[in-house]
Amino acid sequence: MNMHAPAGTSLIADLRPEARSAPESGIVEVVNHGRLKPGLIPLWVGEGDLPTPEFIVRAANKSLADGETFYTWQRGIPELREALARYHTALYGRPFVADRFFVTGSGMQSVQIAVRMIAGAGDEIVIPTPAWPNVAAALGVAGAATVCVAMDFHQGRFTLDLGKLEAAITPRTRALVINSPANPTGWTATRDELAAILAIARKHGIWIIADEIYARFVYDGSARAASFHDVMEQEDRILFVQTFSKNWAMTGWRIGWIEAPPALGQIIENLIQYSTSGSPVFVQRAAIAALDEGEPFVAEQIARAKEGRRIIAEGLKATNRVSLQAPDGAFYQFFAVDGRTDSRALAIELVDTANVGLAPGAAFGPGGETGLRLCFARKASDLTEAVERLQKALSA
Amino acid sequence: MNMHAPAGTSLIADLRPEARSAPESGIVEVVNHGRLKPGLIPLWVGEGDLPTPEFIVRAANKSLADGETFYTWQRGIPELREALARYHTALYGRPFVADRFFVTGSGMQSVQIAVRMIAGAGDEIVIPTPAWPNVAAALGVAGAATVCVAMDFHQGRFTLDLGKLEAAITPRTRALVINSPANPTGWTATRDELAAILAIARKHGIWIIADEIYARFVYDGSARAASFHDVMEQEDRILFVQTFSKNWAMTGWRIGWIEAPPALGQIIENLIQYSTSGSPVFVQRAAIAALDEGEPFVAEQIARAKEGRRIIAEGLKATNRVSLQAPDGAFYQFFAVDGRTDSRALAIELVDTANVGLAPGAAFGPGGETGLRLCFARKASDLTEAVERLQKALSA
Repeated sequence: MNMHAPAGTSLIADLRPEARSAPESGIVEVVNHGRLKPGLIPLWVGEGDLPTPEFIVRAANKSLADGETFYTWQRGIPELREALARYHTALYGRPFVADRFFVTGSGMQSVQIAVRMIAGAGDEIVIPTPAWPNVAAALGVAGAATVCVAMDFHQGRFTLDLGKLEAAITPRTRALVINSPANPTGWTATRDELAAILAIARKHGIWIIADEIYARFVYDGSARAASFHDVMEQEDRILFVQTFSKNWAMTGWRIGWIEAPPALGQIIENLIQYSTSGSPVFVQRAAIAALDEGEPFVAEQIARAKEGRRIIAEGLKATNRVSLQAPDGAFYQFFAVDGRTDSRALAIELVDTANVGLAPGAAFGPGGETGLRLCFARKASDLTEAVERLQKALSA
Repeated sequence: MNMHAPAGTSLIADLRPEARSAPESGIVEVVNHGRLKPGLIPLWVGEGDLPTPEFIVRAANKSLADGETFYTWQRGIPELREALARYHTALYGRPFVADRFFVTGSGMQSVQIAVRMIAGAGDEIVIPTPAWPNVAAALGVAGAATVCVAMDFHQGRFTLDLGKLEAAITPRTRALVINSPANPTGWTATRDELAAILAIARKHGIWIIADEIYARFVYDGSARAASFHDVMEQEDRILFVQTFSKNWAMTGWRIGWIEAPPALGQIIENLIQYSTSGSPVFVQRAAIAALDEGEPFVAEQIARAKEGRRIIAEGLKATNRVSLQAPDGAFYQFFAVDGRTDSRALAIELVDTANVGLAPGAAFGPGGETGLRLCFARKASDLTEAVERLQKALSA
């Protein structure tokens, strides 16, 4: 029997179902539609318009000049783990040890490893939606099921009903994924809400995957959003998935971290070993510079985002065709356009008619289908121009 | 019921079995034992002693100076995929299209993605051993089973019995993993052997994961080892897992590629999206420089390895305590010490007594238990010194 088949369809049919069914990113689909369009204002992905600041780049260049181009510690170089402990100690106002931190090759890889640790075939994970789609997709690749809890959306504002959240837990549930401040909704949990969520997780003996990567992007003048760090014990079943991408304009560097109880260290090391085998030392040196010298840049980014948030909220409200409220946290405006329910079609259309790139809400799961996500971490002139173009396109 | 437990053991017990049972790397264990030992000659991991050449570093510096610090194409930047096509066209003497190449965050990630595409719970993968342990470990994390086919070892030389290989195939078998030139054995398949292996895979309708990362490191004067490229059709079920680490001294950069039929492109893109979401552009620019300008450096590396191979084989033979034959390919000497059967204990002991770091054969699976792996991609003076120390320690 010769089963050698030249056809691509037959090749695909011969893959694992978890791999075949991994969805094409609904965001990337729109990006690929418009990536090369001249003059397009790209507000579709979660990154700002600032390149990585020079003091961070300099640290990488120095490391390369020093010949730091060899294999290194799977958990991350000790200096970076110490820098992460210092950063957390300053930000959360209590001591952290370096042993809690594990360097990864992106926030995405942090999610992948966290998922791999706790969920596989037969398991369920509960996620409030709309949500960043990559967590559910990573769960699908691992063979686990995502249970979505649609958030409530009233007068342009999302809220999470904790009764609904708990009601979604079954004997198969292994974890809650809690993203606050949230992408794409801007929902930002209060300390009391986080304490209540933790109590639910403890009661059911399940994990929390905590995505607090937008913690610094809040607009009420606080230094940071409320955090599970404010309410947890060190040994609680919480895995923080983190990234250097947002605070320090390092999206293209692919570096992040997991914060977890140190007892899990050897297992996390093994999972890093068998996925990417660690992160480049020169990228880790850049990350140390970001943590140790980055506060003025973070402050500048937040101030820019605050101004961007104002421009977008005011500008979109002026169209009289959208319902929205400026978000409490993160750097996205999520909004729906009256009379338009197919967000994928609308996002593609706005690439063509407004030359503005937005992410379709459908990519973010139940509750997001009719909306659009706009990233406002960008210079004011671009956002003003984008608003004018969107006003024109939406009134056409 | 409050299941909140402070103890680490309870946390670990609450993880997925695939994650809990991922083995600690038997190589890293020895490395961690001796990493900080002054004067140690490290021949334990698969990397040379040369830092990345300056022309490669310069390409990364320039990209960073140009502000290429943003998200990019999940499949790799088009320029790198084109450069990979050029490189393959030159090396294999027939045309390759860029669409066959997908950039990953290391050879390890290439393996992880290849595994994820074709194997999961209930599946078996056949691997000749001793072998680089990370493939079997990645299979374990994915829930698949590794079926080892121990190679034959006679008079210091490994051979693969293709009858045994085919006999290991069951209805559950999804793929053969073929590493040639091989780590740690140095086994280098002939073109006829590769054709026979491909015929077996075709006959049973299974995949081949082809690890030819040491293709350039052969010692008979050829430009490269025989390759599945010499015997395959473009649409054969072969996934090549590749890395920039070895040819261009880029172990610390974490960049590699998968070569696969273009029909699988969207699935590979999705799996990259949900594991690390792509590789840094500045690292990809460095990789382009490596491919386009790297031939003199590759030639220099091979010449060094050839001299290192000679020093090690002669020096170890002179102890009269080891059985070995210099390998046909790759850059490792695998050898056993008469009267010593516990390679882990011996490797730890030689760190302490000879101040030389070797990898324990036990880390490489059945057939490797009693041996040691020595990497000879290193400057002659270090290898000469290492041989002297080993001679002394082994005669003590």
